[in-house]
Amino acid sequence: MNTTIIGLGLIGGSLAKDLRKSHFATHITGVENNPEHAKQALELGLVDRIEPLEKAVKNTDLVIIAIPVDKEVEILPKVLDLISHNTTVTDMGSTKRVITETVKNHEKRKNFVAAHPMSGTENSGPTAALEDLFRDRITILCDQEDSGPQHVALVEKMFQSLGMDIAYMTSDEQDHSTAFISHLPHAAAYALANAVQDKEDRKIIFDLAGGGFRSTVRLAKSSGTMWHPIFQQNRNYVVESLDVYIKHLQEFRDCMFNKEDERLMELIVNANKIRTILDGESPNLVKNEEKIVKLYTK
Amino acid sequence: MNTTIIGLGLIGGSLAKDLRKSHFATHITGVENNPEHAKQALELGLVDRIEPLEKAVKNTDLVIIAIPVDKEVEILPKVLDLISHNTTVTDMGSTKRVITETVKNHEKRKNFVAAHPMSGTENSGPTAALEDLFRDRITILCDQEDSGPQHVALVEKMFQSLGMDIAYMTSDEQDHSTAFISHLPHAAAYALANAVQDKEDRKIIFDLAGGGFRSTVRLAKSSGTMWHPIFQQNRNYVVESLDVYIKHLQEFRDCMFNKEDERLMELIVNANKIRTILDGESPNLVKNEEKIVKLYTK
Repeated sequence: MNTTIIGLGLIGGSLAKDLRKSHFATHITGVENNPEHAKQALELGLVDRIEPLEKAVKNTDLVIIAIPVDKEVEILPKVLDLISHNTTVTDMGSTKRVITETVKNHEKRKNFVAAHPMSGTENSGPTAALEDLFRDRITILCDQEDSGPQHVALVEKMFQSLGMDIAYMTSDEQDHSTAFISHLPHAAAYALANAVQDKEDRKIIFDLAGGGFRSTVRLAKSSGTMWHPIFQQNRNYVVESLDVYIKHLQEFRDCMFNKEDERLMELIVNANKIRTILDGESPNLVKNEEKIVKLYTK
Repeated sequence: MNTTIIGLGLIGGSLAKDLRKSHFATHITGVENNPEHAKQALELGLVDRIEPLEKAVKNTDLVIIAIPVDKEVEILPKVLDLISHNTTVTDMGSTKRVITETVKNHEKRKNFVAAHPMSGTENSGPTAALEDLFRDRITILCDQEDSGPQHVALVEKMFQSLGMDIAYMTSDEQDHSTAFISHLPHAAAYALANAVQDKEDRKIIFDLAGGGFRSTVRLAKSSGTMWHPIFQQNRNYVVESLDVYIKHLQEFRDCMFNKEDERLMELIVNANKIRTILDGESPNLVKNEEKIVKLYTK
């Protein structure tokens, strides 16, 4: 199948590796504005060719948009303008409401399947691309009733070929849950990195940073090019999540300050429950043969 | 050399593994109040025998205290009372000021070397013990002028046998830096786990939690038995670190809320600098032949 990937960074590059390995994609065309990244993607064999957008999205079966979400809202309507009526378009953006709003009245809206694969690393660029980046992770498909069933089926098949499970939500539900489970941890890590740099010199941080600090602050390495527009597009829910987080931190801080030791222990014990959630099995997880988990079907 | 380890959890058990492997310890005696842990430690071969405290600290060369810091302030004076004048005592506690205060007038103060190896995991108990848990990490030795030079030398040799580098600070300096680089990340993770559980149900957390969320929240799995007393003993500096962190989070939140997009990007770019600190080489790091890095010698 002919596949076009717009954006050959960590996500687009990793997709290219796995889609080729699984034989889901037979020919991969890349669109990449950064000449250095385009060159690296060719050298690494991620794509068969680099073409300009206008050419690359014509006569292809599937277009995957894997660029920062602010760039995506510019490109997506153009892509829908350019494609044939048979081409499927999907995306990898971490926000969904602004993106789906952008094309809600487009005559080819049904060709677009709004997706958010929940995976990534703190690194970027084609050289950061990893095999199996998506395996055993979940993809959120949004507002599926706004997409044509054939287009949904093709995108589901693609994510399954990557070894992913699929959850279904509205764009609004996805933006709310993702604010808490992905965007908030990034904001928390950025602020933690700034707080520690505010108080400790670089040398002490370097020398004393153990595994705990490194793990908690890891996301603070993530690129602003990708994350700044995510925060902008999901502003209200991320602000809500930060307000909830700051409230919990303030409670933790006040318990310590006021020597409310029993309450402090309760807060720790409640936080510990995250272990049973993350390490346990999801009690309701039922995988059907197609490995689609219709968790949130309306 | 005869070595006694008080507390056979993650830290004491991991120490036992490595000290035996490096032949630093020839006979290891364990002290462990939890009968199940004592049994596991014997079955796992972590120690040669379990003995009551009074017996175990007599006629031994080195006593290592690896129990929660609230228990340590009770046990440490008793250990110093019981040992011979030749025995060295060290500890693994994450706080140092309260502990050193506790024994500052003890007649055997010079036998005690206050230490904090910066390593661990979110798991506990002897079954969580890992080989090489301490390798390439740093140990902080505190107030070395209050310890006899032979005792300092023996403890340095022990940490070197584990593959660790050593930094020297006062107890107060260690408690301040550790508040920011270790205790704050734990408090931040506890509050993040509580915030997300406050807003999202267990099933959504389980399904959507990607690598980023797992990494940022990992420390929230850490045991309250160990961490609650650390927060108590380092109350003032941890409250200070939380105040700094909350201030940075609030700034991040306000930038988003007020659509100060340029300032938001500055905050992200500044946070990104943590990458060059954590992934780079420490510019001043000079290791001498003994692998001791006297970073903070007064």
